[in-house]
Amino acid sequence: MKYRLLTILFIVSCALSTYAQQATWIWYPGDYEIWLGNKMQNRRTEKGAFFPPFWRMDAHYVLMDFHKTFDLAAPEEVEIVAEGSYNVKLDAKMLPGTPTKITVPAGKHKINIKVHNQEKVPAIYVKGRTIVSDASWLVTYEDKEWIDETGKVSDQSGTTWLQAGSWHFNDPQTKPSAFVLSTTLQQPVHTEIKGNSLLIDFGKETFGCIQLNGVSGKGPVTIYYGESKEEALSPEGCETMDKLDINNAAKGPVVTTLSKAFRYVNIQYDPAVNIDSVSMWYEFLPVQERGGFRCSDEQLNKIYEVAKYTFHLNTREFFIDGIKRDRWVWSGDAYQSYLMNYYLYFDEAAVRRTLYALRGKDPISSHINTIMDYTFYWFLGIYDYYTYTGDKAFLQQLYPRMQSLMEYCLGRRNKDGLMEGLSGDWVFIDWADGLSKKGEVSFEQMLLCRSLETMALCAPMANDTAGAARYQKLAAELRQKLFSLYWNESKQALVHSRVNGTPTDNVTRYANMFGIFFNYFNEQQKQGVKKNVLLNDNIQKITTPYMRFYELEALCAMGEQQYVLKEMKDYWGGMLNLGATSFWEEYNPNKKGVEHYAMYGRPFGKSLCHAWGASPLYLLGRYYLGVQPTSPGYKTYTITPVLGGLQWMEGKVPVPGGEVKLYCSTTQIKATGAAGVGALRFSSKTKPVCKTAVITALGNNQYEMTVQAGMDYVVAYKAL
Amino acid sequence: MKYRLLTILFIVSCALSTYAQQATWIWYPGDYEIWLGNKMQNRRTEKGAFFPPFWRMDAHYVLMDFHKTFDLAAPEEVEIVAEGSYNVKLDAKMLPGTPTKITVPAGKHKINIKVHNQEKVPAIYVKGRTIVSDASWLVTYEDKEWIDETGKVSDQSGTTWLQAGSWHFNDPQTKPSAFVLSTTLQQPVHTEIKGNSLLIDFGKETFGCIQLNGVSGKGPVTIYYGESKEEALSPEGCETMDKLDINNAAKGPVVTTLSKAFRYVNIQYDPAVNIDSVSMWYEFLPVQERGGFRCSDEQLNKIYEVAKYTFHLNTREFFIDGIKRDRWVWSGDAYQSYLMNYYLYFDEAAVRRTLYALRGKDPISSHINTIMDYTFYWFLGIYDYYTYTGDKAFLQQLYPRMQSLMEYCLGRRNKDGLMEGLSGDWVFIDWADGLSKKGEVSFEQMLLCRSLETMALCAPMANDTAGAARYQKLAAELRQKLFSLYWNESKQALVHSRVNGTPTDNVTRYANMFGIFFNYFNEQQKQGVKKNVLLNDNIQKITTPYMRFYELEALCAMGEQQYVLKEMKDYWGGMLNLGATSFWEEYNPNKKGVEHYAMYGRPFGKSLCHAWGASPLYLLGRYYLGVQPTSPGYKTYTITPVLGGLQWMEGKVPVPGGEVKLYCSTTQIKATGAAGVGALRFSSKTKPVCKTAVITALGNNQYEMTVQAGMDYVVAYKAL
Repeated sequence: MKYRLLTILFIVSCALSTYAQQATWIWYPGDYEIWLGNKMQNRRTEKGAFFPPFWRMDAHYVLMDFHKTFDLAAPEEVEIVAEGSYNVKLDAKMLPGTPTKITVPAGKHKINIKVHNQEKVPAIYVKGRTIVSDASWLVTYEDKEWIDETGKVSDQSGTTWLQAGSWHFNDPQTKPSAFVLSTTLQQPVHTEIKGNSLLIDFGKETFGCIQLNGVSGKGPVTIYYGESKEEALSPEGCETMDKLDINNAAKGPVVTTLSKAFRYVNIQYDPAVNIDSVSMWYEFLPVQERGGFRCSDEQLNKIYEVAKYTFHLNTREFFIDGIKRDRWVWSGDAYQSYLMNYYLYFDEAAVRRTLYALRGKDPISSHINTIMDYTFYWFLGIYDYYTYTGDKAFLQQLYPRMQSLMEYCLGRRNKDGLMEGLSGDWVFIDWADGLSKKGEVSFEQMLLCRSLETMALCAPMANDTAGAARYQKLAAELRQKLFSLYWNESKQALVHSRVNGTPTDNVTRYANMFGIFFNYFNEQQKQGVKKNVLLNDNIQKITTPYMRFYELEALCAMGEQQYVLKEMKDYWGGMLNLGATSFWEEYNPNKKGVEHYAMYGRPFGKSLCHAWGASPLYLLGRYYLGVQPTSPGYKTYTITPVLGGLQWMEGKVPVPGGEVKLYCSTTQIKATGAAGVGALRFSSKTKPVCKTAVITALGNNQYEMTVQAGMDYVVAYKAL
Repeated sequence: MKYRLLTILFIVSCALSTYAQQATWIWYPGDYEIWLGNKMQNRRTEKGAFFPPFWRMDAHYVLMDFHKTFDLAAPEEVEIVAEGSYNVKLDAKMLPGTPTKITVPAGKHKINIKVHNQEKVPAIYVKGRTIVSDASWLVTYEDKEWIDETGKVSDQSGTTWLQAGSWHFNDPQTKPSAFVLSTTLQQPVHTEIKGNSLLIDFGKETFGCIQLNGVSGKGPVTIYYGESKEEALSPEGCETMDKLDINNAAKGPVVTTLSKAFRYVNIQYDPAVNIDSVSMWYEFLPVQERGGFRCSDEQLNKIYEVAKYTFHLNTREFFIDGIKRDRWVWSGDAYQSYLMNYYLYFDEAAVRRTLYALRGKDPISSHINTIMDYTFYWFLGIYDYYTYTGDKAFLQQLYPRMQSLMEYCLGRRNKDGLMEGLSGDWVFIDWADGLSKKGEVSFEQMLLCRSLETMALCAPMANDTAGAARYQKLAAELRQKLFSLYWNESKQALVHSRVNGTPTDNVTRYANMFGIFFNYFNEQQKQGVKKNVLLNDNIQKITTPYMRFYELEALCAMGEQQYVLKEMKDYWGGMLNLGATSFWEEYNPNKKGVEHYAMYGRPFGKSLCHAWGASPLYLLGRYYLGVQPTSPGYKTYTITPVLGGLQWMEGKVPVPGGEVKLYCSTTQIKATGAAGVGALRFSSKTKPVCKTAVITALGNNQYEMTVQAGMDYVVAYKAL
């Protein structure tokens, strides 16, 4: 295992040495993410009380050794900055004091920097002419190191070295621990003054700190935040609030310290306090919007815009669940964010950060977020990341953490080899009334099966041949079991669970819809599931955008874009009709008025800006524009535009190094290639024409043509 | 395992509820110790460069839940202070904001306090009339916790709760993270001025920060520290130094920031700098000296005094190795300190702190301090702690950490079930020229065997019946192997090692001397070992006080106090003759002059104040005053005074709740009992007389009488 890892690192190391010589702050991979995750996830409050996660939060390693060997043509002066106490070794010899500048002679030399920091993550920044700190440095927390009796430290040992982690801290003065999100001052669209209170409307869902302008006097001020007007106006019911004690002789601004989510704020102030006006500091992660979608349906365009805004608000230090309440990194929620991200920002670092933070450290004592299904989504997210980005090095670095998490899962199977909620496990699936979690739920077995397949795919890339075979075998056995235990021939569907060894009669959508896009069903089963489950109104309906994501994906995967378009307009359009300015955690069209804001038994418990509400970003990119990688990092990919009833649509899908652009009407397709080699696939009533490409007829009105990177294509055709 | 632990905790909890109502700061057991250990162990410097440990340093859990249930006769106001962000739940309902005072109504109520702190250890201080924070609170880092779908958190889960850790922080304002050792200003005994340099002699080995008095001017000042005059006078060779940049317009004191060990300091200053005089801030842990020893031999009295001082200097935040160089917590060194401590301070908390800090956290990736033997001493130290203190609760808390460390060890045995150095393992044994670490060293097998016996003894106390049987079996098998593989019948000794499956011919003292006081030998073997190894000058001599500790202990255990007394006078007296003011890391009487200061290939590499140099404290208490517990916590104990050639001796041995006092000459024994029931055993030529106790003749000139707590006894006898 150790030696295998070292082999990997050498390969990786060579690949990385071609990186541009941009110095950047580096650390132990995952440690900064865990540290920043702790900061972020301990900012939740409820009615002013601190509300931290209810699972183990890990900590960074406090003592770190970084090293790299350089071969220099000429001597070089190198600047060193660190977060923490540190020493520097040149060719294994410790330099005196705490050097901030060293000169490395010409020739082959090894630099080691050892850093201790208990409060913050040990990190270094090194910059010379050619010697720079970057991901090609190796790093260890000294899991073990051999020291011989004469006191010489050698690394001929089992010490595990990983590639250093980094983000975007390219300035020696920009210490990673000082990172904060960007902010910009914004003004309300409406202010209502009543007695000693102000009701401020910022016009749409937003996030940040409130700035009271021209504050003077002495006395208490209370700020009640509301995603809805009703919430802001309910001191008892609102989820978040701030209490300030003002004591300003001269007029001046007062800014709250903890950013919050809101559209409205209700400010109650003491008569002895004066407030001239109210602004806010909008807080956000600067990201580049690389994907896009526009079409002939204005409601759909509006849905896409609001989905983008919803997603942006929830794309922060990490992909979080929602901005008002938890503000935590939840693996199931994040998994959908990764997928949306591939069609909007293609921000690879955000996915890596989130995956690292979620995984935490060994020993594993509970499922990720304590939720069984959320552990499985973590595995799935890694392979998706590799598929979209082609970043094999990340997968290799993470592989040992994948192994130990999978061992944890396998160790929790029952005597029949199935996953069943044990003490401390949360079998979540979805927020749905009366959903049974008893016994062995088919949905969980299906996710474990997919996770095992993921392990089998990743193992060879980490040179774990034996593991690959083992995971493959376990996956195949479980997949077989899934059908022998849960497939109900008369219902033509998988049943929800087995209790006391007996399959129940209950059919739910969950396992059935995942089975579609996991491609676990044969054609007959697929059609059975579609008719008897997906399009069957007697099967309990889904009321969260979270599971609607997969339900609609399953239908899209079966070519039901027309049906899904109508569903999107009804469901997401339904929220817009109710005045939503961002998409919600849950939407049940049968509810009325303020009922919509309630959840978890609290009147305003529901998040009105939830990342999982933004799934049209993914569905429109992947199943309408139809751009999908078919090999890692889009070396090959398909473009399969499906109008689904639209007159026209156009958009962009980000891929490594560029964007695939597409316009599609009922008579014309225009495409611009990027990255690798694309295959444009479409159907046409008439023989399509393209002046710059050969179109192959596949029969049955299907056509295909090759799209090369950087080339524009125009195809005349006639939609079926 | 979980349920077993809970059972333990209930028992423990009940036992603890009788504790006095002293509020104290509490934390997760071991976490503060790990955090403080990081601070302490990252203070080593070498020639001004930061020199941290070369193994993984662990971190505290950043999110902690504390709770206790109280049954109140009347409502009670309770003050709450925490290190970190926190919230308070009363009967599982979160109170608004961050309460610093709460009122708990009469009746049965549960208080939960949840604290997050990434920089420091989450800790709380709670004080009401009867509600106080103490070791009876339970605490978890939420290894897992069940949350049901309505958002209610329940602890009907696998969450592991341990008893809170604490030390002596009984004031709400004395935050644990602010702890520093005590200091007192001291003056040098001699100052030598030469040009722009000062050579200061503090008269004896000491530890602290240098204060330059009346400093003015501008320019550099360098301080070279020396445990010897030669070291201070060697800017190139000295182990530690400080460089200061002075820029004082007006005269004032300048104090160094990092405490150092020294007797001499050599201060070189710029001609533009003025220094009036030099003082030092002596830094120390306040401890109570409860044990003592005095006798008719003045050299031995001096040895005892210097041993006490040596031990005090090395008893700090933890029991450390030596004050000049490593200043780290080394398990093998600490193991001897525990034993000395039982005969001098009986500071139970210091032992617990050190054991916690050494163990660190899971997953285990290397031996403690990377040293195989040091892992085993850790196990031995726990059972000794229990034997001397009777503190079963600590052992129970630690048991899961003992289990996982033992599994680590067992998993590293080779195909023959023996411990052999693997990659990353350091087989230390002792500093000795040419000592072979190849193959399977008998000494390591013996320590593993003893560790397994320790596990077998501790397991039943943690209700691990199956474990007890398993460890017992493994220990018995290994003990049998120790003799079948290593006992050389012709040499009448254990050989040093097996290489390639073949026992070597080499006989060393290590396994043989441990075998004596572990009582592994039969009488014939014992005598063989004594003659052929311990008293055989042809067997390589030991040159560290570290292994002399065990060598002399083995001889004492065989009644050779007279021989050992002479050895002590020669060896420790030898250091005194060379001017030692504290005892050394190594002493080889064959060396000359400054040769004594060299080690590790460096002219002043040797520590002249090493904890393991203080072993006479233990030997004199246990084998001359002869006070030894025979059941945990001195419920029963023996007093077996052995003069070993002295005319008289007197002393005290601390036991839980008091001190056993003893005077013994060749004609009179005076004893004062403490703790449980003592058995005074002695031999006499004549029938001994005691007015207040019945003396039983055991035959063969041996006598025994019972010593009750708090009672004084005078016995007239005649030494053989």
